[in-house]
Amino acid sequence: MSCFTLAAREGAARAGTLHTAHGDISTPVFMPVGTQASVKGVAPDELTACGVGIVLANAYHLYLRPGTQVIRDAGGLHAFMSWPGAILTDSGGFQVFSLARLSRVDDDGYHFASHLDGSRHTFTPESVVAIQEALGSDIAMVLDDLVPAGVDEPRARDAAHRTLRWAARAKAVLQRTDQLSFAIVQGSTYEALRRANARDLAALDFPGYAIGGLWVGEERSLGLAMVEVCNQELPPDKPRYLMGVGTPEDMIEAIRRGVDMFDCVYPTRSARHALALTSTGRLNLRNAAHARDMRPLDASCGCPVCSAFTRAYIAHLFRAGEMLGPRLVSVHNIAMLNGLAKAARAAIHDGRFDRWSAGVLDGLQRSAGAPS
Amino acid sequence: MSCFTLAAREGAARAGTLHTAHGDISTPVFMPVGTQASVKGVAPDELTACGVGIVLANAYHLYLRPGTQVIRDAGGLHAFMSWPGAILTDSGGFQVFSLARLSRVDDDGYHFASHLDGSRHTFTPESVVAIQEALGSDIAMVLDDLVPAGVDEPRARDAAHRTLRWAARAKAVLQRTDQLSFAIVQGSTYEALRRANARDLAALDFPGYAIGGLWVGEERSLGLAMVEVCNQELPPDKPRYLMGVGTPEDMIEAIRRGVDMFDCVYPTRSARHALALTSTGRLNLRNAAHARDMRPLDASCGCPVCSAFTRAYIAHLFRAGEMLGPRLVSVHNIAMLNGLAKAARAAIHDGRFDRWSAGVLDGLQRSAGAPS
Repeated sequence: MSCFTLAAREGAARAGTLHTAHGDISTPVFMPVGTQASVKGVAPDELTACGVGIVLANAYHLYLRPGTQVIRDAGGLHAFMSWPGAILTDSGGFQVFSLARLSRVDDDGYHFASHLDGSRHTFTPESVVAIQEALGSDIAMVLDDLVPAGVDEPRARDAAHRTLRWAARAKAVLQRTDQLSFAIVQGSTYEALRRANARDLAALDFPGYAIGGLWVGEERSLGLAMVEVCNQELPPDKPRYLMGVGTPEDMIEAIRRGVDMFDCVYPTRSARHALALTSTGRLNLRNAAHARDMRPLDASCGCPVCSAFTRAYIAHLFRAGEMLGPRLVSVHNIAMLNGLAKAARAAIHDGRFDRWSAGVLDGLQRSAGAPS
Repeated sequence: MSCFTLAAREGAARAGTLHTAHGDISTPVFMPVGTQASVKGVAPDELTACGVGIVLANAYHLYLRPGTQVIRDAGGLHAFMSWPGAILTDSGGFQVFSLARLSRVDDDGYHFASHLDGSRHTFTPESVVAIQEALGSDIAMVLDDLVPAGVDEPRARDAAHRTLRWAARAKAVLQRTDQLSFAIVQGSTYEALRRANARDLAALDFPGYAIGGLWVGEERSLGLAMVEVCNQELPPDKPRYLMGVGTPEDMIEAIRRGVDMFDCVYPTRSARHALALTSTGRLNLRNAAHARDMRPLDASCGCPVCSAFTRAYIAHLFRAGEMLGPRLVSVHNIAMLNGLAKAARAAIHDGRFDRWSAGVLDGLQRSAGAPS
């Protein structure tokens, strides 16, 4: 059976259901990031209360600490972090690329030194499958070869080709039938490379596909164009995941172009910087204006934080250095992005995504110049 | 009507009920500390889930930040921090004494510079009543004159006498009928001073009494002796609160000597240092021994944390620098002290406090030498 059921379309935008071993996920979906097996500051029951059904974790980080064996001993990642919902693990390619020291890539895989203790490790397409099968995530990403933004076409082509070869090697060693393996389309900002890579990976018949290597410094319009190109080539009956995105604005534009899944540290990282996402733009809770404001963060938000706490109280928590501040705003921001994805889904279902998205973007825009 | 109903006694130990405008509190009770209107890292619904019915907040801190007016505008401290239970506010004498700069005390009150911005303020017995009435706490402490540990007898006597005069001045200006005013017994470690001060304050007929100025550096046995002396003089039909205590061991010994109420930052501060309280002693979660331990923090604890998470996971959170670590251990530690007070109450009720406490102290002791 396919892991994805398409329920409705409007233009390229799609509403569907992703079927995982830990529950069905309505799409479009925003997945909060729990890199080290913890969505920063937020407990599993709070994620559930925000309507979250799937979170991310990271194979690179968990392999290094606490180590795959500890998580296997705990009965897998779900049991380890006490999360009853679905989990997608990223393969760690991006982390080797961005965090690890002395990293070197060849056809075999990545050779790197841990950013924690300098110990030497190798990630191959096969070992990364084995790590994620040991973690027991519901969706596992294949290892991909990443290139920085702005590389020339030959370098981008080599990386895309290697990513394709690695995807085939990964697929050949899959063992778990309860884990969905997703391939990752690369090709930098070269349309022909993206198109070819997407088509070649599609031929390998993975359960799902991700679009990687974007939102890394290129022009936003170019990133969106690449999303459009990839989605034209990817099989319409399979889920599509845009890695590392994003903001409400970027999510809406990517949904319009046929993306089903998103992840980003944005809601929790913003929260730690006292930034709350609202339907009328961002609030900087350190601004004096909020110190006496007895309204919730967003009057239209039904999250547990907006039901109980005022801007004045949360602003006080940040000024007082209380860790409850980042925590409450993290919960709210995740609920906001989850609510945005849910509203997008309902709009697509009713054939009013274009109108709905115009209204949402207008709301976000309207206050962009206002004091935040 | 009295704010306190005595339900059972065993020797000097008491089980009772404290009646507040925000609910009845079974005693003995441990009150978590939310100095700045937030129990560090813990949300109100988690306190409720731990069985907590009353928390502390601090008039000095809240007067300076966010300011009394903001909290009044919010509808009082309960609404401001979204806490449905009872609140006891400390008068701030201790904070002026320990935190404020350039502080000077005379018969009028405390004159000090804010530790936040150096601004000049005066706290009088009357102004501190007004601040706490504006905050709207259920129990308000009178302003007391504190002296450091080890002062000579004349200095301790002056402070005790001033505390008595201030208590009378505070009582004369009380306006709220839904707030209980507690006086504070001083007298350092001088038995005659403590006895006289307790007796004199008792004559002023406050709804409740606190024992202050102890656990500030004196020998523990001397502190406990002072508790015994104070409780011999304080009216038996009124609640007794030992300020700033404490550890499980100290709480048990003070309950044995007739104390009903406790507060301390110990459970949350310990948690931030990766120390978990258990019935068999303290666990330092940074110790390697816990990294693969799939047991809960305390197998006999029914708190939300012990129901969901292992030592291995929580140890991982601390190593990974995840804020969920301190948060989870804070919840557990508060639940432990709350459970200890509840068990003490049941034991007193059944006339087996002596036996019960011997068993608990034995358990805590047994592992004191073991690796933690």
